[in-house]
Amino acid sequence: MQQHLTEQITLFASVLKWTFYASLVGLLVGLGTTGFLKSLAWTTAYYASYPDYYLFLPATLLVCAALVRWLAPDAAGHGTEKVIEAVHKRMGKIPLAVVPVKLVATVLTLAGGGSAGKEGPCAQIGAGLASGLADLMRVEDRDRRKLVICGISAGFATVFGTPIAGALFGVEVLVLGQVFYDVLFPSFVAGIIGYHVATSLGVSYPHAPSCLLPQLSSFSFLEIILLGAVCGLVSLLLIELMKFGHRSFERLSWHWSLAPLLGGGILILIGTLVSTSYLGLGLEGIETGLKGELLPVGATFWKSVTTSITLGCGGSGGILTPIFFIGTATGNLFAQLVNPSYLAAFSCIGMVALLAGSANTPIAASVMAMELFGPQIAPFAALACMVSFLIVGYRSIYPSQLLGIQKS
Amino acid sequence: MQQHLTEQITLFASVLKWTFYASLVGLLVGLGTTGFLKSLAWTTAYYASYPDYYLFLPATLLVCAALVRWLAPDAAGHGTEKVIEAVHKRMGKIPLAVVPVKLVATVLTLAGGGSAGKEGPCAQIGAGLASGLADLMRVEDRDRRKLVICGISAGFATVFGTPIAGALFGVEVLVLGQVFYDVLFPSFVAGIIGYHVATSLGVSYPHAPSCLLPQLSSFSFLEIILLGAVCGLVSLLLIELMKFGHRSFERLSWHWSLAPLLGGGILILIGTLVSTSYLGLGLEGIETGLKGELLPVGATFWKSVTTSITLGCGGSGGILTPIFFIGTATGNLFAQLVNPSYLAAFSCIGMVALLAGSANTPIAASVMAMELFGPQIAPFAALACMVSFLIVGYRSIYPSQLLGIQKS
Repeated sequence: MQQHLTEQITLFASVLKWTFYASLVGLLVGLGTTGFLKSLAWTTAYYASYPDYYLFLPATLLVCAALVRWLAPDAAGHGTEKVIEAVHKRMGKIPLAVVPVKLVATVLTLAGGGSAGKEGPCAQIGAGLASGLADLMRVEDRDRRKLVICGISAGFATVFGTPIAGALFGVEVLVLGQVFYDVLFPSFVAGIIGYHVATSLGVSYPHAPSCLLPQLSSFSFLEIILLGAVCGLVSLLLIELMKFGHRSFERLSWHWSLAPLLGGGILILIGTLVSTSYLGLGLEGIETGLKGELLPVGATFWKSVTTSITLGCGGSGGILTPIFFIGTATGNLFAQLVNPSYLAAFSCIGMVALLAGSANTPIAASVMAMELFGPQIAPFAALACMVSFLIVGYRSIYPSQLLGIQKS
Repeated sequence: MQQHLTEQITLFASVLKWTFYASLVGLLVGLGTTGFLKSLAWTTAYYASYPDYYLFLPATLLVCAALVRWLAPDAAGHGTEKVIEAVHKRMGKIPLAVVPVKLVATVLTLAGGGSAGKEGPCAQIGAGLASGLADLMRVEDRDRRKLVICGISAGFATVFGTPIAGALFGVEVLVLGQVFYDVLFPSFVAGIIGYHVATSLGVSYPHAPSCLLPQLSSFSFLEIILLGAVCGLVSLLLIELMKFGHRSFERLSWHWSLAPLLGGGILILIGTLVSTSYLGLGLEGIETGLKGELLPVGATFWKSVTTSITLGCGGSGGILTPIFFIGTATGNLFAQLVNPSYLAAFSCIGMVALLAGSANTPIAASVMAMELFGPQIAPFAALACMVSFLIVGYRSIYPSQLLGIQKS
């Protein structure tokens, strides 16, 4: 009896402690992410007021690469990958300098026309702030790691605008095939508070349009499984292309400034000769697809290329917005080829299925489908997410993700 | 390159194989569960046409106990517990006789006025049918286990009416703190097909009413965490009360028929002296609470008692419907005491939080909140689910659930 009581009091105390810690993290991360998102919106609008703003890309990317190289080498690469590494290899320790450097470098990259995401940087800012808080409070290593995971979850929840899927993503992305149950509660607290802080400071999220539901016949059932498989394959190609981009620019070893200059040059060519819609965040492209309008046939390919170049040559940013774009485009193209009446539905499903595949997060991606597109389409989306997750095998857009299970 | 190709082809083949297998399971389980749910509805209506139908409880429970004892001892106890045991200890092997015996015994128990659930039996029927299919197809042990897990998921998806939460529940409930990622895909396929078969055969699910959302102030935030803690404690009490019921009736070792006769007698007393609303499934009570109407103060207590007696003395059935009832009543009472304007919201949150606590399935419970009550209330519900899951510690309503993690 006494043992029971002691155990119960310990559990209560742990809940109280983590409610407090996680609320602090959520508050901090909400503020940090809001700052980032507002500067991004402001700078992007400023840049976009110039015609052909993207012609400065080589200079912009050079500045970003220099910033990261000189001030905070840990801010290099795409954000989520770096925080996964920090959680697994350094108990979550992240230099605080990463936060401002990542913020400025990503804003410059994106506003200047580089193709990258805003999610990873938010996770990195969140993790950096949480790690700073852990320093300040001198907590032990195990608690630091938990705090940093909360920070990651809060970052995602705030930038996705989907508190549950965001928090789940933070705890699902760390290890392939495992969920960190012991951090679920603080991650949710931090996620909800972060999201609340951001919305009350005026951050708004685009509402996903509702879309025509596929009829569940045995035929459309197979279509959705096929779409999942296609998203899995596209995830694989994206993973390989990202690696290829990094390796190719690394070979330009004569001087570090060569890579951003060359990368910027190629991006200008693509912007001029193909389309500027593959530069920057690309939110309009995602919206067009989700609304059920046609996307160009080459969208999947060109967005993958511009992202691989931007992140490979020294630009700063995340990979998730491009993943959403590429997934939407893949679903859109699939619908054009297979069943044009489901352009919107397949675009929605493609978006989450590509996330499930490339990041190995089928549960968070399914829950995101539910939060964004409603419970009607979610079962189909979940199905495609699972297939995509299986097809991608043991590869991941995040090389630091640990392997927790066997897939077949 | 060749290795990559072989791996990819293996993964594709595995997806195709499991699409086929899981569809078969989904079809079978959808038919089986529909048969069960329809007989249950029909028999309950028939019984209910007699006034004081519950006075036959001793005889009814005696018949159930005899059926199980003589024809299929594996059908004893609450359903989910038995299938968890079969998955962990016998690679999912379940005698096919369990299916009809469980079906008849549960229908009798519930229609006759015993307090139990319909979910566990659906899982058990699903698992039994899947195990029979595995026998028929002579698959190896590893695949049998996967098939049986699919059957469980399909059973839950069909009876909950929430395909994603149902399938997730099936893979989350087996081990505390672990999700079976390798069975996620087939479980989803089986769940969606089972659900589709059931709905097209006319099974309908009550739509949860939409309810007033709590405002996220720091005060209501703490209220929800407190509600989660209360649900965790009530889960603990329920777990202990169930154990106590089983042990007490086991001590009546003079003759096996004594337990159902005595248990039935006590239930008649409760039905006559307290209320008949704590007998049977109790769906009306759940609905009343979720709609935001008042439930009696003693509802949590009395429903726990009648359930512990019914399942302890030899009645057949599951534990989940009573858990939903007790959770709803707990949330309802909490709202009466703390904040009466959120009667509906707290009842909804209580329902899923008690599930998360007693079954140790916080993710499935959160997703269920999303599928049943919509994405607005889900973050709050998820919070309460996590707290309840933490507070309950390492105990579980399912003693066979393996321990996969540390909680504090």
